[in-house]
Amino acid sequence: MLEALTPPARGFPLGEFAQRLARAQSFMELNQLDALLVTSPQQVRYFTGFESQLWESPTRSWYVVLPAGGDRPVAVIPEVGATGMASTWIQDIRTWPAPVPEDDGITLLSDALREIAGVGGRVGAEFGREVHLRMPINELDKLRQTSGVTLVDGTDVIRRCRHVKSEYEIAKLRYVCQLASASFAEVPEMLQQEHTEISLAREFRNNISARGADSTPYLVAIAGKGGYENIVMSPTDRPIGRGDVLIIDTGATYDGYFCDFDRNWAIGNVDAEVVRAYESVWAATEAGIATAVPGATSSDVWRAISDVLEGAGSLGNSSGRFGHGLGMQLTEPPSNIEGDETVLVEGTVLTIEPAMEFSPGRLMVHEENIVVRAGGAELLSVRAAPQIQVLPAN
Amino acid sequence: MLEALTPPARGFPLGEFAQRLARAQSFMELNQLDALLVTSPQQVRYFTGFESQLWESPTRSWYVVLPAGGDRPVAVIPEVGATGMASTWIQDIRTWPAPVPEDDGITLLSDALREIAGVGGRVGAEFGREVHLRMPINELDKLRQTSGVTLVDGTDVIRRCRHVKSEYEIAKLRYVCQLASASFAEVPEMLQQEHTEISLAREFRNNISARGADSTPYLVAIAGKGGYENIVMSPTDRPIGRGDVLIIDTGATYDGYFCDFDRNWAIGNVDAEVVRAYESVWAATEAGIATAVPGATSSDVWRAISDVLEGAGSLGNSSGRFGHGLGMQLTEPPSNIEGDETVLVEGTVLTIEPAMEFSPGRLMVHEENIVVRAGGAELLSVRAAPQIQVLPAN
Repeated sequence: MLEALTPPARGFPLGEFAQRLARAQSFMELNQLDALLVTSPQQVRYFTGFESQLWESPTRSWYVVLPAGGDRPVAVIPEVGATGMASTWIQDIRTWPAPVPEDDGITLLSDALREIAGVGGRVGAEFGREVHLRMPINELDKLRQTSGVTLVDGTDVIRRCRHVKSEYEIAKLRYVCQLASASFAEVPEMLQQEHTEISLAREFRNNISARGADSTPYLVAIAGKGGYENIVMSPTDRPIGRGDVLIIDTGATYDGYFCDFDRNWAIGNVDAEVVRAYESVWAATEAGIATAVPGATSSDVWRAISDVLEGAGSLGNSSGRFGHGLGMQLTEPPSNIEGDETVLVEGTVLTIEPAMEFSPGRLMVHEENIVVRAGGAELLSVRAAPQIQVLPAN
Repeated sequence: MLEALTPPARGFPLGEFAQRLARAQSFMELNQLDALLVTSPQQVRYFTGFESQLWESPTRSWYVVLPAGGDRPVAVIPEVGATGMASTWIQDIRTWPAPVPEDDGITLLSDALREIAGVGGRVGAEFGREVHLRMPINELDKLRQTSGVTLVDGTDVIRRCRHVKSEYEIAKLRYVCQLASASFAEVPEMLQQEHTEISLAREFRNNISARGADSTPYLVAIAGKGGYENIVMSPTDRPIGRGDVLIIDTGATYDGYFCDFDRNWAIGNVDAEVVRAYESVWAATEAGIATAVPGATSSDVWRAISDVLEGAGSLGNSSGRFGHGLGMQLTEPPSNIEGDETVLVEGTVLTIEPAMEFSPGRLMVHEENIVVRAGGAELLSVRAAPQIQVLPAN
């Protein structure tokens, strides 16, 4: 039943990290930065390879400093993580026995920043959009006042680095998209049994886990008579039955990389307007995919999708965009919105996600995952059928 | 095989939220605050009941403002969340079509803060330890400069509220601890098959999911010959075999509440020093549990555990503490460390977590979950056996 797909090797060769640092350093030069400080799980993992589920605990702060010159980042981390960090390519690891409420690594970090960036040096940090500084604001304020370096926004460096995926990253993204595609293909079989949103979500989660996904942090399963009214709330104990339109949207991970796409089904019977709405978002997806070539912008993708949906009589779209970047996070920059002039390049990974309110309070959302290639978009997800699938009701 | 436990009802009665707000308001008075601003998933959920997996996306900021007077919080949120928020007890919901990079809700939030706290009012925010402000720092700086209110540290209010669990919260915590206990009891059966750390972790995750857990954000499965050397890294493809000491530590959730405890096994055979180390951490856990009575402090719990482990010849403990608070997060304040004078009260939920390096590079960690009651601690997890269980090797 579960066909085996071959998982790409976990982790990355050393050269991948050296290349990430070198690219970061070139963008640091562009931003006149003497160092880059990162604190959040994705940034730390991106530049070091360090991963730990201990991020789930908010108690301890973790710091990694990238020098403008020099050949490796420096880690300033809780002692509990020293063994793990030592298994990465990082060599300079400075620890304290966190938690120490009086001084939870701030003196150690200040010293490292002065040493690496120089007194008065400019240190980029996660101050911008779509990144979160993972340290107490009181400690940031202390660092700003006493470190002797100037903390400025370093988001541009992070964003430029992560915007272009390497082939190693793309292989992980493709794999997890394939896992999710295979699980979506089995939803009709799952629905031969009676299900609530919660029980179906659980079976779907187990299915994708059994195939090889590491986790499924995002899993929305929502059904509504003649259409669903939102796409962000968690599954409920509502039974799925005749007349429902069902959407499952999932962000599963493999080795730290996400898929993010959805599928729709009708149960028992289906209104003509649901059929049409599905065809419209499917066609809008085609238009978005066709537009995603090197040199196009996120805004171009938005417009291509928007034109189709407006032509189909869309009443609006509460999600505010038609897809976004994808990688180590469920959503990454850019946003497919009007006015986002981010230029797509080879290696940009995007979700193409048309959404329309096709009648008051009823939504239809479609989504595929692609990587931008020289010759145009390559699908990472297995393309959905052009018509909505109607499943027998129990 | 899977005995059914009865899950507590999801969500909370309205009175629970009203009580949370009333308690927050009393602590706001203590801190001379005119309003409290919260931005992170746990705080928003705690005060509103709103939950969404969309938190997984870093793109949008979400704001909830608690007035010092007044009977409900005010939500200032992305339009995509409006339907969901409207299903909670919140009535005043203000939205914008996020993402809007030029002004992503900051003007809307500024207006709300001035209206609620008054010009020059003091607004508490998540600035302290073990909370994370979930909004871009650039936008925080803008808010500080232009909102007309004074943003100060509001962590004390959040901490005092969440430190004491209601019976509704305790029921959810007990349930998820029972689920994990039942899954732990089946590990010997799982290990009748050959497993790597990853495959065992996956089977454990599926097992606890099938029982009724919603998610398992924390799942460490580490094996090492004669002992493991860390307890925070993710499972690897290392086969589990004869001579190994295996630990599984899990944080699973039900309706937003975590368990956090571990179990140890020896495979095939076991060194005398492993047997002794296990008995020592088990005895230290007994001492910690016995100390956790109303009026005792986290420091008292630490000392009781520390005395036993020092007597047993511990070489140290890299995790920096012997347990912590537990609730909507895997770890919450307080920390069981020397000098944490947080007073335990009826309704405090704690992990009791002795850890010792029993020989160089080899750790033994034990953990149970308790709630402090008038008569002493009530166990939420099913107490581990006093001797390490030795399982047959494959």
